[in-house]
Formats: sequence, C-alpha cells, structure tokens
Amino acid sequence: MKRIILTSLLVSFVFSLQSFPSEELLPSWNNTQAEKAIMAFVARVTKQDSPNFVKPSERIAVFDNDGTLWSEQPLYFQLAFTLERVKELAPQHPEWKENQPFKGVLENNLEAVLAGGEKSLIELVMATHAGMTTGEFEKTVEAWITTAKHPKTGRLYTEMVYQPMLELMAYLRANGFKTYIVSGGGIEFMRVFTERVYDVPPEQVVGSTIKTEFDVQNGQPVLRRLPKIDFIDDKAEKPVGIHKFIGRRPIAAFGNSDGDLQMLQWTDAGDGPRLMVYIHHTDEEREWAYDRTSHIGRLDKGLDEAKEKGWIVVDMKKDWKIIYPFELKK
Amino acid sequence: MKRIILTSLLVSFVFSLQSFPSEELLPSWNNTQAEKAIMAFVARVTKQDSPNFVKPSERIAVFDNDGTLWSEQPLYFQLAFTLERVKELAPQHPEWKENQPFKGVLENNLEAVLAGGEKSLIELVMATHAGMTTGEFEKTVEAWITTAKHPKTGRLYTEMVYQPMLELMAYLRANGFKTYIVSGGGIEFMRVFTERVYDVPPEQVVGSTIKTEFDVQNGQPVLRRLPKIDFIDDKAEKPVGIHKFIGRRPIAAFGNSDGDLQMLQWTDAGDGPRLMVYIHHTDEEREWAYDRTSHIGRLDKGLDEAKEKGWIVVDMKKDWKIIYPFELKK
Repeated sequence: MKRIILTSLLVSFVFSLQSFPSEELLPSWNNTQAEKAIMAFVARVTKQDSPNFVKPSERIAVFDNDGTLWSEQPLYFQLAFTLERVKELAPQHPEWKENQPFKGVLENNLEAVLAGGEKSLIELVMATHAGMTTGEFEKTVEAWITTAKHPKTGRLYTEMVYQPMLELMAYLRANGFKTYIVSGGGIEFMRVFTERVYDVPPEQVVGSTIKTEFDVQNGQPVLRRLPKIDFIDDKAEKPVGIHKFIGRRPIAAFGNSDGDLQMLQWTDAGDGPRLMVYIHHTDEEREWAYDRTSHIGRLDKGLDEAKEKGWIVVDMKKDWKIIYPFELKK
Repeated sequence: MKRIILTSLLVSFVFSLQSFPSEELLPSWNNTQAEKAIMAFVARVTKQDSPNFVKPSERIAVFDNDGTLWSEQPLYFQLAFTLERVKELAPQHPEWKENQPFKGVLENNLEAVLAGGEKSLIELVMATHAGMTTGEFEKTVEAWITTAKHPKTGRLYTEMVYQPMLELMAYLRANGFKTYIVSGGGIEFMRVFTERVYDVPPEQVVGSTIKTEFDVQNGQPVLRRLPKIDFIDDKAEKPVGIHKFIGRRPIAAFGNSDGDLQMLQWTDAGDGPRLMVYIHHTDEEREWAYDRTSHIGRLDKGLDEAKEKGWIVVDMKKDWKIIYPFELKK
C-alpha cells in the first residue's frame, strides 16, 4: 500500500517532467536530429499507453566514461594519474631510473613507454594501483583528482566532463532510468568521483578490477590490492561486465570508440525499443577531433556499424552548444 | 530543484512510516530483544537529528541467502537443482553411469558424491551450469524453480523463505536502505527469482560467478557460460565481492554461518553505527536445528565472535512467530 503511494508519487513526478520544453531539459544540445531521436526514444518507452512502454526497473542505460562522459586526450586521464604516481613514488624505487617502462616515464619519454605496448602499461598500473589497502588507494585518487590539472586546459580533470552528457543523464534519471557507467577504467579509480561529478553512485559503476584480498592487519580487517588483473572491462568484456554486475540487458547504451562496439551490439540485440548512441569527436577547436586512426578512442568499425544499423552518431561540433560546464560560467 | 522536491517527498514518506507501531512493521517477530535491537538501530541511523544519522545513499544492508533468507537443509537448494539436472542430462552422457561423482548422483548415493569433496561438487556444477548461453541457463533455472518441490515440505523452494526476513527487508527498504544479497550461491541462479521473491532486483545480487564469454552466434551476440570458476563469493571473498560489486561498506549485515563471518567483520569495522546479525537455526520442529558441527551452514567461530562482540543472534525458535509465509495462510 505504502509502496503504491510512493510509486504513484514518482510516476506523477516523472510525467510532470515530460511536459517541459526540450530546450529546458537539454539546454546544451542544439536541437538537432540526434537530440530529437534521443527524446523520441525516451517518450516511446516511458508513455504508459505506448506499445513500447518499458517498466522503470528495466530502464537501464549504460555509459562508457573516457571520451563519452569526459575527455580522453592527449591521453586517458587515469594514465595521467599513473604517470604522475610513478614520478611521486620514484624516490622509493631507485631501480626505476634504469628500467623501462619506468625510465621512460621519469624522462618524460612517452614514446619509450608506449613502445612496450600493453605489457608496459600493465606494469605501470600495477606499480601504482596495487600493494596498498583499498582505503589507501581511495585517498591517493581523491588527493589527485581534486588537485591535478589537465596539461592543455589547466582545468581539473573532473571539470572536463561533457555538459550535454550531464544533462542527458539527469534527463534519463528523471524519466525513471538507472544510469550506469561501464568503462575500461579502473572501477575503484572512478568510484572516487562518479557520485559527485555524474550523480552516479559507486554501485552503478562497472569497470576494470584488480584482484583484492581480505586480510586482518593489526586486528582490523582490510582489503589489500594485489598486482594481478582480475577483469578488463573493454571490448567483448563489456557485455560480460554488464551481465555480471547489472544482470539485466540495457535498453540504452552510449559509447565513443570501437571498445564500446560489443556493448552497443549487446544492447541492440535485446527485444523491444533500443537506443544506441556513439559520441563522435569532431570538434578540434573546443575539444579534439579524431576517429578512425586515433590510438586513443579509435572509432572505426563502430562508425561503419552505426551507419549500417541506424544508430545515432552525435557530432560534437554540430550537436552540442557547449562542451564543458565551465563554458557556462564565461 | 525537481530533485529536491522528490527527495523531500521521499523523506516525508519515510518518516511517516516510523510512527507505525512495531507490531505492524514486523508482525512475524516476537517482539523480543533481537527485534528491539534491530529497530533501535534503524531509528538511530534514520533520525535526521541523531548524531548517528546515516544518509540514505550509505544505508547498505547485505544479506546472505542460504540459511539467512531461505532454508538450506537437507542440502543447499542450488545443489538440489544441480543433482536433478545431472539426472535430466544423463541420457546425453552415457559415460556418467561409470564415473564419479555422476555415478553417485544417478544412483542416489550422496555419500559417494560427497566423498569427492569440493572438486566433485565443482565438476557437477560445471556439467550443469556451463556450456550454454546465459539466456538458456536462465530458462532452465526458471523452469526448475517454478516446479521443483522440497523433499521434506513438498513446497516450492521459493516458498521456503523466511517470512520474518521478508518483513525485515521491506522495513529496511522503507527506511531508505538498499538491500543486497551477498551469497555463495550462483549469481545467475539467484537472479532468476530474487526480484519476485525478495523484491531484490538482479543488480542488487552478489554471488559466485563462472567465466562468461561474448560470442556472435548466427549473427546474434550471445554470452556463453564457460566451465571455469570466476569468483566464489564465500568466507573471505564476501568482503571482496561487496567491495567489487557495491563499492561501499555496508552498515548492516545478516548471515547464518561461518561463511558469513568476514562479511560481518568487514561491516563491523566501518565507522559509525553498525548492525551485525546472525540467524541461529534453533527450531527443529518448524525448520531445522544445527550450528557448530553441521556440514551445511556451520556456525561455530561466528557464534563465539558474535557473543564476544555483542552482535545480535536471532534465535529462530524464540524470536520468530512463524517461519514460512505459507504458515500465514493456514
């Protein structure tokens, strides 16, 4: 009974929102085709008398993070964290001066680092993300994310989130959607800031994990981060992560690279109405322009498949009035 | 702004509930010490002006499943599913007649099966839980859980849930808690029924997982279940699972065996008010009575630690008016 009252309050709240003019809901969008298609989808699945009505519990929307919710150039922000941590920790590791990939980091020779491929990157991640308790790691990320500045904009990394996507996530939530982040980034790295930056709580963040071990340290239980990969939440593993963590197939998925392709395919393959959206980086003035040949956030196969299947491709330059929230305060 | 309105609606709703007399909230509890202690905890963390107030987003409560939310005797219900599946699949595996542990299952010789220890059990689980798509597995569980009967009561397994715990979970949710299941059981096995039985949606179920692989089959993306353990969500792995899936430390934890001990320790070790509860199986008439020497759901170290630390121990015989929902309809 109480439950019914609450539900009807929520429903009337949600419906009252739908009468708002679209400019007010997504003010940073240019009212182009992409925006209209997204809003039409939301209307279809939320109208009680629509043949495509989807009950709120099934309204799962998943968002990639790097390049979809915040920028990822000139290199993934978590990689920037990793490189800066190597420098901070270097005094405790004199041997790093002589050994790649650490040597390259300390000499600001990124090419030497990248020459080692994925193996080198994993080595850097393990040296900076493992060997401490989960609480200690959280504090390190918190200290970095609230102070470190982006090399190009001089802004905090958390200021380089996309205002149109913030509005879109809030709009979806107001329409009964549960918004999830599904990213190749480290789950514990992201969880430090997703709630205050995106309004996405830790339990709605899916990401890559390293092995963790329960231990009792001075009589206190702790979780210790081990230098061992547990799960890489990228490409074909994204649907696996979604299935494992969420246990429902999303009805809407947002990505920006070929690493998100299987997540969009998995979303698309469900029954009923589906929304698949690629964010296309087309704005070299306000952000960056890259796609088919980029080393970071390559969008090649995904761009072809989006065209073939009629998925929405958001053109950042044309479709977005502004990119970052700080532009609002100009 | 809209958010603020919604929040205040929710808050006033939640507070209106608190004025209900306790008998109405937990009618199947005997109003003994255990019930009073649980209700006092909830009052402490939800009263806005309490020094122990916990904001709703942090009100995470975790529940073991087997022996905490439903019965687990004479053997874990998922093991009953496993054994029945072996029999169903046997015609396709003539070699099982000659080989343990399958031979033991087919001959109803459980001792021969158990003689093989954990290795044998894993072999049975892999033969029955892997080698199909996630969709196919779901259908198999759904067919079983809606028809299979418990050998002692003749009831559906989902009827053998504890009415007092259903009331308790609903009461916690009405007070802004998010209720999670954290069980050694298979995550995909449980997710088939947790929403309709416990009102716990799939995304709030943490459990054991096997490796899953994304594949494209006849042009359709599928997830294929592989015969390989991914994660066993038991004992010291329960805090690991909580941290990985939820990413917040619970403020309340409910278990019934030594397999839940680390989960209770991890919950206890957080700051602020904490609620740790053991369900003690003391009722051989209405359910089963077992603890320190049981092979299933052994509660030995946990019982000592509960006494030492002042955790709540629910005595099923004394504290619960009824055990199962079907007793209500008598």
